[in-house]
Amino acid sequence: MVDAALAELAAGLPGDAVLTDPASTDAYRHDQAGFCPAGTPLAVVRPSTTEQVRHVMRVATAHRVPVVPQGARTGLSGAANAVDGCLVLSLTRMDRILEIDPVDQVAVVEPGVVNAALSRAVAAEGLHYPPDPSSWELSTIGGNIATNAGGLCCVKYGVTADFVRGLEVVTASGELLRTGRRPAKGVAGYDLTRLLVGSEGTLGVVTRATLALRPVPEAALTIAAVFGSAADALTAAARIMAAGLRPSLLEFLDSPTVRAIQDYRDMGLPGGARALLLAQSDRGPRAGEDVAAMGRVCVEAGALEIAEASDAAESAMLMEARRLVNPALEKLGVTLVDDVAVPRARLPVLLEGITGISAEYGVRVCCPGHVGDGNMHPTVVFDRGDPAAAERAGRAFGAIMRLGLSLGGTITGEHGVGVLKRDWLARELGPLGTRLHRDIKAVFDPLGILNPGKVLP
Amino acid sequence: MVDAALAELAAGLPGDAVLTDPASTDAYRHDQAGFCPAGTPLAVVRPSTTEQVRHVMRVATAHRVPVVPQGARTGLSGAANAVDGCLVLSLTRMDRILEIDPVDQVAVVEPGVVNAALSRAVAAEGLHYPPDPSSWELSTIGGNIATNAGGLCCVKYGVTADFVRGLEVVTASGELLRTGRRPAKGVAGYDLTRLLVGSEGTLGVVTRATLALRPVPEAALTIAAVFGSAADALTAAARIMAAGLRPSLLEFLDSPTVRAIQDYRDMGLPGGARALLLAQSDRGPRAGEDVAAMGRVCVEAGALEIAEASDAAESAMLMEARRLVNPALEKLGVTLVDDVAVPRARLPVLLEGITGISAEYGVRVCCPGHVGDGNMHPTVVFDRGDPAAAERAGRAFGAIMRLGLSLGGTITGEHGVGVLKRDWLARELGPLGTRLHRDIKAVFDPLGILNPGKVLP
Repeated sequence: MVDAALAELAAGLPGDAVLTDPASTDAYRHDQAGFCPAGTPLAVVRPSTTEQVRHVMRVATAHRVPVVPQGARTGLSGAANAVDGCLVLSLTRMDRILEIDPVDQVAVVEPGVVNAALSRAVAAEGLHYPPDPSSWELSTIGGNIATNAGGLCCVKYGVTADFVRGLEVVTASGELLRTGRRPAKGVAGYDLTRLLVGSEGTLGVVTRATLALRPVPEAALTIAAVFGSAADALTAAARIMAAGLRPSLLEFLDSPTVRAIQDYRDMGLPGGARALLLAQSDRGPRAGEDVAAMGRVCVEAGALEIAEASDAAESAMLMEARRLVNPALEKLGVTLVDDVAVPRARLPVLLEGITGISAEYGVRVCCPGHVGDGNMHPTVVFDRGDPAAAERAGRAFGAIMRLGLSLGGTITGEHGVGVLKRDWLARELGPLGTRLHRDIKAVFDPLGILNPGKVLP
Repeated sequence: MVDAALAELAAGLPGDAVLTDPASTDAYRHDQAGFCPAGTPLAVVRPSTTEQVRHVMRVATAHRVPVVPQGARTGLSGAANAVDGCLVLSLTRMDRILEIDPVDQVAVVEPGVVNAALSRAVAAEGLHYPPDPSSWELSTIGGNIATNAGGLCCVKYGVTADFVRGLEVVTASGELLRTGRRPAKGVAGYDLTRLLVGSEGTLGVVTRATLALRPVPEAALTIAAVFGSAADALTAAARIMAAGLRPSLLEFLDSPTVRAIQDYRDMGLPGGARALLLAQSDRGPRAGEDVAAMGRVCVEAGALEIAEASDAAESAMLMEARRLVNPALEKLGVTLVDDVAVPRARLPVLLEGITGISAEYGVRVCCPGHVGDGNMHPTVVFDRGDPAAAERAGRAFGAIMRLGLSLGGTITGEHGVGVLKRDWLARELGPLGTRLHRDIKAVFDPLGILNPGKVLP
């Protein structure tokens, strides 16, 4: 039966579209998430057209073979990890930008287009595609849509879902579904587009997307504020938002993160620096006035030192600390990156709780975060090759999610559920929400062949 | 059985919450849509608490009684119209603003809160709730959510759905579902919030909503441009958007609409005026520069005359023409208001087609529109008491929707499907989309008691 399925698959695909040799397929087994099981695929299929995707899904349905849709495998929750005996459906060959329309301010793209490629292509037309996950140089639009990817811009511009107008989707049975529309507004029926965005490949395979674009924003100015305590920095962040200022970026680095960065590369941060806040405004001629106002809020909240960029080059220098977070933390050991989001007003309580969890479980937790959105990435760091520490890290990770939920937050702000947080999702959704999820899944995928074992508890 | 149901209902509700006298219930039979059938309810129930709504739904489920959720009945598609033997579930008594939080910039409200009441309450806290359907002085947040209401602000700020963070919903069987979250970001599971917004009461009854707020925008400046042809005005609108200007309002009035307004009240528009464009910018100190730039675009596109407001009072004067649209058109006869949205670039073709439809069916069609979003309200006007004209108007209405669809648009940009466009929805969704809608409806409402006969083809 496996051979029959493979033969049928091959019959409808180009010769080089099906990989079965483990030496070739091995790289497709998992995304960037640590600590997530990854199975061994039956094959990796790399279609170039929507019709080929439909063929793959028809064969998969006929033979009840699980299918794992996959982009660039930059995800952080294991949503793109293979399951045993599956077809990994890699969409990276479908990488055409089909249209960029400056009047409608939309782009129509295939799922394998890399975020950066789209961003550059639309910039050349004087347009802007805001969603900017940190993987943007590698990750695909299809993956961004599947995970509803966030980024640094969200505090002002929103997340991927806010830019998806319509989708072409191949269903589990190989049918072609079109959702949404090209115009900005539309209320004809249920919002299937939004239901599919963020569904992590469990409801359908996106083969084409109509994306909203914006005018290119003006160059941003940056301010960096150094604080003697995390509470002061978080208070400043909350006040910046409550003051009606509209930062285009608002990032927080806690004390362990600041120390890790200093150890990685001396940024000349003052010795007493226990927290760092980075804020930007991209309101053109008003950006200077905006960052000055943000600076005043920071000083009133107790900032020890303020650095204000007067131009783009200085802004880039100030942003350097933020860009060093990942390499600096990875140098410390194995990292387990969490992704809770809580109401902004609860951030000080969240951070205090995380400090407590760090002490209780005897693990280091560094906490950078998109503080403007209440979205923190508490990162549990532990020594490679220490199974006891890994076990404690896992429990600390769970404790942080439990804390986030208790503060009226969510277990995942932008990284998704995948396999990493599947067992936690039920706590957030509750029994009724979980049941509705299962029933909706069954509507789209009655045989349960689409990315099985992901998302749903 | 009917008596048993009513007795059970009454047992769990305050004495004055159940109306059965036709003299009282008659006013609850229909919303503002013309030409939509309205049934006779068994009773109108007016719960004051979520627990009472649950009671109503439990009784309705036990007795298989249809339930029509209802707000202020300002809808334009008959979605809130009674069906025979139903319970009209009026949510207007649940009108508490439970919380306005300036740090998280959210409001938590019950569904019966009137849009204007919320807007004023948040303004008092220095915050802004953008969605501004023209019914805003009367319509409720629950109704706005059920229909995903739009308005004039959408071109810059988006629609109701863009401001709904989370919902508390009573299901068909009386269970309590919580969706979404309070923080801005969250990707835990499928986007049930967005699925429920715009579902017109067919999937659940919203009993509480967490809404995103924004800082109060600065006062807007307005420009009015008079054109000798609709094509020139539409070209100007498209160029304003393509130029990267970000109007906070961009409205179009075609020649029959301009004439109707002039006949209703002399606005001193030049005799050659065949179209009017109104645009605003609310970018504070840059608003003047913005409207000047928009004016230049209009002149380049052939505007005959430009009026630029230099302050809020002059802006209000220029907006007067827009505010007179509804009374002016209603004075002409019976109005059948359509709501198509097409890609901006196709607007000239749409308008040309509408002119053709007007001639073909021998009916007057006036076409005001939220042109920045491609959302037009072609309004078929005909004489009261002329059945032949009414019949032609109905056919012209259908022809306009067919045209909108053929241009890559939607049959409804913001008014919803209700009963008015139910038979048209299948054309937009296609067979697979329609089937998925039915299956999703069955997940939430297996007995089909929630607003039966609405939305679904």
